[in-house]
Amino acid sequence: MSLFSLLINGGLSAVGAVICYRLILTYIPIFIQRKMYGNDQSKTSNDPVPEPMGVICAAVYLIVMFIFIPVPFFEWVGSETEFPYAKLLAILSGLISISTAILLGFADDMLDLRWRHKLLFPTLSSLPLLMVYYVSGNSTTVMIPGLLRHLIHPFFDLPISVNISFVYYIFMGMVIVFCTNAINILAGVNGLESGQSLVISISVIIFNVVQLIRVDSQYWHHLISLYFLLPFTACTAILFHFNKYPSRVFVGDTFCYWSGMTLAVVSILGHFSKTLMVFFIPQTFNFIYSLPQLFHFVPCPRHRMPKYDGKSDTVSMSKAIFKKSELKSLGKLSLFIFNLVGLLEKREFEKDGEIWIEINNLTIINLVLKFSGPMHESRLNQVLMGIQISCSILAFFIRFYLASLFYDVVN
Amino acid sequence: MSLFSLLINGGLSAVGAVICYRLILTYIPIFIQRKMYGNDQSKTSNDPVPEPMGVICAAVYLIVMFIFIPVPFFEWVGSETEFPYAKLLAILSGLISISTAILLGFADDMLDLRWRHKLLFPTLSSLPLLMVYYVSGNSTTVMIPGLLRHLIHPFFDLPISVNISFVYYIFMGMVIVFCTNAINILAGVNGLESGQSLVISISVIIFNVVQLIRVDSQYWHHLISLYFLLPFTACTAILFHFNKYPSRVFVGDTFCYWSGMTLAVVSILGHFSKTLMVFFIPQTFNFIYSLPQLFHFVPCPRHRMPKYDGKSDTVSMSKAIFKKSELKSLGKLSLFIFNLVGLLEKREFEKDGEIWIEINNLTIINLVLKFSGPMHESRLNQVLMGIQISCSILAFFIRFYLASLFYDVVN
Repeated sequence: MSLFSLLINGGLSAVGAVICYRLILTYIPIFIQRKMYGNDQSKTSNDPVPEPMGVICAAVYLIVMFIFIPVPFFEWVGSETEFPYAKLLAILSGLISISTAILLGFADDMLDLRWRHKLLFPTLSSLPLLMVYYVSGNSTTVMIPGLLRHLIHPFFDLPISVNISFVYYIFMGMVIVFCTNAINILAGVNGLESGQSLVISISVIIFNVVQLIRVDSQYWHHLISLYFLLPFTACTAILFHFNKYPSRVFVGDTFCYWSGMTLAVVSILGHFSKTLMVFFIPQTFNFIYSLPQLFHFVPCPRHRMPKYDGKSDTVSMSKAIFKKSELKSLGKLSLFIFNLVGLLEKREFEKDGEIWIEINNLTIINLVLKFSGPMHESRLNQVLMGIQISCSILAFFIRFYLASLFYDVVN
Repeated sequence: MSLFSLLINGGLSAVGAVICYRLILTYIPIFIQRKMYGNDQSKTSNDPVPEPMGVICAAVYLIVMFIFIPVPFFEWVGSETEFPYAKLLAILSGLISISTAILLGFADDMLDLRWRHKLLFPTLSSLPLLMVYYVSGNSTTVMIPGLLRHLIHPFFDLPISVNISFVYYIFMGMVIVFCTNAINILAGVNGLESGQSLVISISVIIFNVVQLIRVDSQYWHHLISLYFLLPFTACTAILFHFNKYPSRVFVGDTFCYWSGMTLAVVSILGHFSKTLMVFFIPQTFNFIYSLPQLFHFVPCPRHRMPKYDGKSDTVSMSKAIFKKSELKSLGKLSLFIFNLVGLLEKREFEKDGEIWIEINNLTIINLVLKFSGPMHESRLNQVLMGIQISCSILAFFIRFYLASLFYDVVN
């Protein structure tokens, strides 16, 4: 029966992809006519690129989900058993978070919302999801690594697992806020937003399928994740087709929030939020690396995307230039650490009697360009996709091999 | 306990209203800067009026609802009883329909969607709601009027009630599609969209309170309606303050879809969709009266709002002029009927050897102006609000007095 649901879900996803393809073509001229477009900073031409096209794919995604929702419950009709309320609740609470994330993203594209509103809204819109997690009696227990237990055993007897209760809810809330913003922060290269989302969602799908085959007890958790992810992957693949170099459309914040929230939602409903964070290693690294500029410990220019050179048609790392006196102490410390571990291109020079500092902007994109030197934009995206895929492979290694070394029981 | 929830809901609504007020003031310049505005056709000045401000109030509404959702379930925590899944499902499925209606409205404001998309999306987004209605074992039984039963009794024995099953679902689906579009069609005068929604929502609130006191058995149905409507009314009241003559903001399609969907949702969750339609009499009349132009049986100009006269600062009915040969047979028939019952201003004249017809545009607004003659825009809105309030009073009369004459048992 669940195979039947999966087949229907896959079929609807395929139809959704076709509709996405046609609707994007339909709406490209409408976006331009309504002045909803951006200009590609890394091209010599100045053609308008429709933005945010993510809203079209997100709308198709929602429609596919609405049509699909009743399907997994067909087997209940006419049966004598009680309706599986908790399962429907899980799907609906996930959809609420996703649809409000889409709304938030679209509003952000249109209105440039403030940061505090952008952090507040996803936090609040995930309340129904966390509440459903709570009332469904889902576990907030985490395993303690066997290795750690054995090491500490002579002094102290650690249990196999501990219930961290509300701390787990705070963790899940943070996963949601982090994911909704993580894709948005790692952006600025043709095909990057949609590409990274595609790699992560396909990785999660592989993980779900492996778990469906391996672990009987978590059947529903990985099934529900697939229900959400197959249509998402289908719609995103089409979007990537239009968004990859040279971009015919931009995805917008709408896509970034939609994609981040969808991945966060499935990880919570599927009970693999910790595993998801391993798939998000590049985004996490980029976020931590960006922190000094995001929190303005280090001066941050308005745009941090790579610098385009029209002559050679390549991009190189973009730089921030500021007076040394502008640097706060936390900024000094973080630059010192980044410099120490070789993650910083830094130059000091004197001008008008003051000492100025020039550093690369603190994003993983500029970091790649620091090591590689200037390269073509499409090549840069390939490198970034390569990093993302490597991290997915690493994630599988950590999840399936390393974890079994550290834990006594691993699912 | 439910009184406690209502108090919290009322408190949150009040806070929501204050936040709406401040956010609208904050976002007025941002909307204008982002070129999101309209021009008021019925004013001599050409100042930009920010639009769609409904999206700000809708976002506040969603946040209030997210914060409120856990409240009615506090009493369950620590109790031994099973969690009231069906109640949470009802709230979440309603919120999904509402949040996607807001998204649809906002997309329509930004992109001018096509009619078929505007009809398809609310239909599909209401599927979860109807599904929850189904699995919660809610009744699809309608009462048969006692009078009818007595009249037919000598020939045929009618039951007291019949289960019309899936026909009832089709009816509810139509209520949703009708309501989401009804407010949008009755528009074009300062304060009209927000004003009519305010009158209907306050009427429904009064109806809910009366039923809470009168009928014990439907306690939850009217309670859940209040949970949704108190914050809606609070946010809409603030929007009305800015939208009434002279409009400082326009509400946009975002508001019309949000408001229509919210009213439809509460009527379905609260089991009073038939009663709601009585509150929608002006909208229903306007819809039927508009049909010949909406379906282009009669030529329809791009805008049908009243004509503004700058000298006298009044509005008068706007007209459609077309060749008699353009009129289709269904158009001829409908104009003949409207003329017969005195609902049409019609003039025929000859020009360039052809017969031309001039009629008033078929909206209830132009109909009021046909009977009253030109009047000031704020006066016109007062008249329309008067009609809406009269219909609410009529609705109470029908619901509580007439119904008890026709039916044996009325709740």
